[in-house]
Formats: sequence, C-alpha cells, structure tokens
Amino acid sequence: MTAAPPSLGARILARAAELARHSDMEGGLTCAFLTPAHARAQADLAAWMEDAGMTVRIDAIGNVIGRYAADPDEAAAQVLMTGSHFDTVRDGGRYDGRLGILLPIAVVGALRDAGIRLPYHLDVVAFAEEEGLRFKTSFLASSVLADRFDAALLDRVDADGVTMAAALAGAGFPGAGKPDALRAAAVDPATLAGFVEVHIEQGPVLLHRGLPLGIVTQIAGSSRFQVRIEGLASHAGTTPMDMRRDAAAGAAEMILLVEQRCGQVPSLVGTVGQLQVPNGSSNVIPAACTFSMDIRAGEDGIREAAIADIVAGIERIATRRGLTASVERVTPVNNAPCARWLMDQFGAVLRKRGMEVFELPSGAGHDAMMMQRITDVAMLFVRCGNGGISHNPLETITEEDAQQAAEVFVDFLRHFRPKPVEQ
Amino acid sequence: MTAAPPSLGARILARAAELARHSDMEGGLTCAFLTPAHARAQADLAAWMEDAGMTVRIDAIGNVIGRYAADPDEAAAQVLMTGSHFDTVRDGGRYDGRLGILLPIAVVGALRDAGIRLPYHLDVVAFAEEEGLRFKTSFLASSVLADRFDAALLDRVDADGVTMAAALAGAGFPGAGKPDALRAAAVDPATLAGFVEVHIEQGPVLLHRGLPLGIVTQIAGSSRFQVRIEGLASHAGTTPMDMRRDAAAGAAEMILLVEQRCGQVPSLVGTVGQLQVPNGSSNVIPAACTFSMDIRAGEDGIREAAIADIVAGIERIATRRGLTASVERVTPVNNAPCARWLMDQFGAVLRKRGMEVFELPSGAGHDAMMMQRITDVAMLFVRCGNGGISHNPLETITEEDAQQAAEVFVDFLRHFRPKPVEQ
Repeated sequence: MTAAPPSLGARILARAAELARHSDMEGGLTCAFLTPAHARAQADLAAWMEDAGMTVRIDAIGNVIGRYAADPDEAAAQVLMTGSHFDTVRDGGRYDGRLGILLPIAVVGALRDAGIRLPYHLDVVAFAEEEGLRFKTSFLASSVLADRFDAALLDRVDADGVTMAAALAGAGFPGAGKPDALRAAAVDPATLAGFVEVHIEQGPVLLHRGLPLGIVTQIAGSSRFQVRIEGLASHAGTTPMDMRRDAAAGAAEMILLVEQRCGQVPSLVGTVGQLQVPNGSSNVIPAACTFSMDIRAGEDGIREAAIADIVAGIERIATRRGLTASVERVTPVNNAPCARWLMDQFGAVLRKRGMEVFELPSGAGHDAMMMQRITDVAMLFVRCGNGGISHNPLETITEEDAQQAAEVFVDFLRHFRPKPVEQ
Repeated sequence: MTAAPPSLGARILARAAELARHSDMEGGLTCAFLTPAHARAQADLAAWMEDAGMTVRIDAIGNVIGRYAADPDEAAAQVLMTGSHFDTVRDGGRYDGRLGILLPIAVVGALRDAGIRLPYHLDVVAFAEEEGLRFKTSFLASSVLADRFDAALLDRVDADGVTMAAALAGAGFPGAGKPDALRAAAVDPATLAGFVEVHIEQGPVLLHRGLPLGIVTQIAGSSRFQVRIEGLASHAGTTPMDMRRDAAAGAAEMILLVEQRCGQVPSLVGTVGQLQVPNGSSNVIPAACTFSMDIRAGEDGIREAAIADIVAGIERIATRRGLTASVERVTPVNNAPCARWLMDQFGAVLRKRGMEVFELPSGAGHDAMMMQRITDVAMLFVRCGNGGISHNPLETITEEDAQQAAEVFVDFLRHFRPKPVEQ
C-alpha cells in the first residue's frame, strides 16, 4: 500500500462532525473537561479506536489510549505515540485537537484493513484536557503522561465550585482521581520512540503559501497570568473624575499596554481573553477588575522581555492611579523545539511525494509541548481555511487536505525508523 | 415642641444598622428588588411605621406607604409626601436611601408622642426600587407612583432569567404585578402638596465645607447606556497582533475615552461600572465585550455634548479596529430642578436655627427626580463622612448630623405652608 484509500479524508471530516454533536452548549461546540458531552466524546473515540483494531484503555485522567500492537515478530518493540486533545475552548472549532486523533484512527483502520503491521507499537492518545477551559489550567492530560502533573491542582474549583478531585472521582476512571493513581499513569520514557502530533495550523501561514501541510520547527512558549486590579468603589454620580480610583479604567490602560508592547515584535503576541468587573453596577465606580493575560513569542527571550516590560507597566499605571495590582503567573511554558531527526522523516515523505517541504513554528501550544519533556517530538500542521481562524466555529479544513495529511502519515509510519545513534 | 428629643439621631442610626442585617450577601449589605432580604426589610419598615402611629399599606410595586393622618379638623387636607428607597447597590452603604425613610419615621413618632397633628397628611414612602441592581433599570418604584412605569419592563429578566413580572407575581403585592394594578397605583397629582426627600449627600461637598446640611438646587440628569462591542474570536497564539479584531482591546480604548472626555468639564462625570468579556477564555481573542456607561453633568447641555462626542468616538474606534459597536440608551433622565418655594422653607428653618443656608446640586439621581414629573420637590442633604464615599460599606454619617437633620425636618413639617398662589 503506497497510498491510503481515498476515503480517509472524508471519513475524518465526517467523524469530526459526528464528535462535534456532543457539546456543553446549544448551537455550538464546547467540550470541557469531564462534562457529560466530554464523556460521550470519550466513549465515541474509544469505540472508533476498537473498530480500527486497537486495544483501548482509559487512564486515570481520562485519556483514551488505543494501541495498534507491533508485529509479533518484533521482540523488543518500542512505542511511537501520536495523538492530540478532544476537549475544546468555548464555542470552538471541530478540528482543533480532534484532527490529531481522528486522522491516526482512520490511518490505523486502513493499515489493519490492508493487513499491515508495524515494527513498533503505535499508541494513539486522545488527550482528555489541553485547553484549560474548566479549571483554568491547561495540559492536564499530557502532564499526567509526562509525569508532570501537579497534585495541588486537584483542589482547584471550576465556576460552580466543584473541585478537580471531585470531578475526577465522579468520572469513574481507574484510581478515582487519587494522586497516586495519577502518578502511576505516567508513561515510562524508556519505552518511547517519540511523539508525533498532527494538528490544524490554527493560523494563516500555510493558507497564504498555498500549501496543504507544514512541518513544525518548535512550539512557542506561552506565559499566562491572572491579574487583579483593586481600587475604591464609590458613587458614579458624585465622585469627581480626578478623585476616582477606578479599577476598570486602570485595567483598560493596561490592556492597551499589552496590545501596544506586543505589537512591537513580529513573533510576539499578547492577549487579554478574560475580563470582568466582578459584581459591577452601572452606577458604581469599579472597586475591582480582573483579567487574564497570555503572552507568547517565537523566542523565550523576546517573550520574557515583553513580560518584564508589561508587568512593570502595570505597576506604574496602578501606582499613578492609586490602585493595587496583583499579577499571578500561571503555567509558564518555555519554547519546545521539535526533533530534527523526526522532522527529517516527515520531510523525506513530503519530498518523495513531490510536495514542498515547508517548516514553520507553532504559535499555539500543543500536547507535544508537554510530551517533549520526556521524548523527542514532531508535529505535522494541516492547512486551516477561512483566513486561518481557529478557536471559533468558523475553523475549517478541506477533505483534500485531510486526505493528503492521512496519506503522508501512512507513509511516515511505514518508513519510521527510531532515532539514529548519536555520532 | 421646638426641638425633637435628643434621641432621634441615635434611633435613626440604630435602625439603619438593624435594617442592614437583611442582606443578599454575607459580610456586606446588598438588598436587591424582591429578594428575601428585601422582603424582610420591607416588613421591618412597615412595622416601624405602624409603631410611629402611621396607617400603612403596600402598593403594587412593593412600596411601603405610611400615612400620618392630618388633623381631623382639616377638611380638605392635601398630602405632603416624603421618602426614599430601601433597595441598595451591591455591597453598598446603609444610609443611601434608607436615611430618607428612617428619619421621617423617627420624626413622626416624635410628633405623635408630643401629641402634634399636622394640617396635612404626611405620607412616608419607602420606595422598593431605585438602584437598578436586579433588572438594570432604576426608579421602578417612583415611576409607579408618578404614573411613568413602562409596562414593557415586566418582561425584563434578572441574572437568573426570572422576569420582573414573575418576581412581582411571587411577591404577594396587590394586583400580582399586573400592568393594570401598577397603573392604578399611581398617585393623583392634584392631591399632592409636594415631595421632599432627605438623603445622605454621597459626595464630599458638605464635608469639605464643614456643614451638616445642605439644600439641593437640582438633581443632575443621568444617561445610561449598554454598549456591546463585537469582533472576531480567534487563537491567542497564532493570530498576529495586526490581524486581530479584539473586542476587549477596543472596549479598553473606549473606556479611556469616557474617562478623558468627562475629565474635561468639572461637573461632568462618566463611569463604566459593568464590564465583561462574555464567556472569555485566556487563550481566545475576545469576540465580544460589553460594558455599561453612565454619564451625568450639572447641565443637560454639557451632558449631551459629552455623550455625542463619546458615541462618535466609540464608532470611530470600532471602525478603525474592524469591530461593530451597538450603543443602547437606557433611562435617559433630564436634570430635575428643585422648587424654589420649598427650598426657601428649608432655608428659613436653617436660618432660624442659626445655621448656614448652603445650596448645592445633586450629582446622584434620587426618587425626587421621578416625583418631580408630577409635583414640586425639594431635597435636604446630610453630610457624608469618610471623604464623601458612598455606594460602599464605608459610607457613614454621624449621630449628631442625623439629629440635626431630624430637628430641621420637624421644624420644616411644623411650618410647612402649601405653594403660594402665583403672583
């Protein structure tokens, strides 16, 4: 088999649509960690993995892990892992994360149908959580596999006051969300040959270049912050403008600072995605204003320099306005480089198929970022339509691009060779 | 009786403390329209009015109206109305509104104890709603009395999706919240001799001048808006800064515009008290941002000029950023002048007592503003401590100032004469 059956792209898109029916919201796709929609998506994925010929298990954090076992002749087979997340942002797209699960499932089904065994175990992981929607902390699922799970997070509460520990205990996974069970769910890095992730680009670069696929060079680190500004509540009608300590006006100035500072360097981006005056009233000067801040760059140094400037600027604005600012850093993640030897194996497949070998960095964080802590990683990006929009219902890919990606992935798997010995 | 008994100030403060125990929140005072705390406050006020010798009724919107009946010898007695609201902002002060109910109740009790009847009916109204906290529309209670209630508001929902109609039907008031009953609850302006309101200043002017009391010249009009900015949700890590249509960044620029424009004229104030990115995620560029806008000035012309500039500025900012802005005007209220003949009767009392007659405008809106649509009004302001802070738990008055205000109010009532015939 040199090319996958032509139906793979269509099957991937159809299953993405089917999976998107499980949603926490009406009229859009939201699939937050451990909600009823999440459980239904998990069940579908497990069933599809079994259909494709995999042995399936669910681990302590809710990851669905399907194994396409190695050719029995391979005595000391290692594990090549692939996968991505099936949780979503609020009102998100149906390919973000899910493409990297549905594509390998379709590919494994095709290999099984063709009677092809691989000289290594292929583990397809449907990561239960990456986006951080419910508990405001991302990479929960891959951090368990990478033995980087922070047990203190079990006490985090969601918007309804439910702790992560309680949510996990209620989900029925092995170990009932106990810290020991989560630690035991880590994979042994010595068994891993590497981790590869297929993902929609979530940006406009491939679209603008007219390319269906790209090979990722590195995944940009992101730094997230929760900022709380405090001022003084007072009457909107009687407090002169120059006697106010208005937390929202201070926050507004800080938001524009983030925008202005991050606009100075091409690879740098800064986003205030959450913003609120808690319990605000239209006739009361805001006593408090809270916002999130997400800052990323192609280089760690560029990101950290921007963060230093922005945090200093927030302090300066707060002081000038008689406000107090608390800036709490959440999930700092450094840039994660992809492994040249894995990138080159993807490159060889593309070249052999007469396709341009195009390499690009990822501005978005991915599960591969966490897996890179314990093994070599690579990522294959698939072109994103509609101007490159993602984290939005308008996110889209074409059937042809999905088909191309699946064919490339088949070739990659069939020609995969473990890391060459260092020279 | 030329002076009220010295215990009036203490009794007013004690009852304000007692009433503040009924709250929708822990550790602070919130009393929103038709909550359980609101019902308990209503019951206390009705009981205190009865204790003071008044005949009490509750009307269709939940106002508690106590009548201290005129001397039976007065055949064609008119009604002098006084009162203020007992609902609060979130985590507000205990004197805002309530002082204007508790003070007249204490004064009526003292008159009754002294065996003094007045040549007119004195109606003390505890208005059920003025702040607009629950249904984002203020002056509900006084608009019923003034026959200005907008029946379309009955379909408004609170944060939990409860309509005003349902809340009123469940409250057990006469008429069960039916539009007819609300219309029938209006007072006949022909019976009214006027409306006077005692209120804490909610600002620093009397405090800075060292005066316990002031006579209000006019109540500043306020214009409230609900603004919704819409942009495009997209990935926080992959969308370059110059390709964003970020609703929150646009809103930030608009908030600073409000602050800057309103800072240009001394009597002008502008406040963004509510602000939110609905369903925001830290890693998604905000598709929408909503905020309230409250703009007031000593003169209608100054306010309207500022509004015109700000609305034009919002459109300009939205256009430049590829956003759309919808600016909905809520409760536009023009300035309400107080009646010179009523102000002069307060002035005469102050002068007779050797106090400075100081007149000042009110930056805050008050029930008197709505009552001014159907009768002549006046307001007596009482000094506000702690730098003039209000809509805040720090709001305070002294027992001495409450006592002075009560004594002045007794004298005002005893010497009150109806509006002189126009010359």
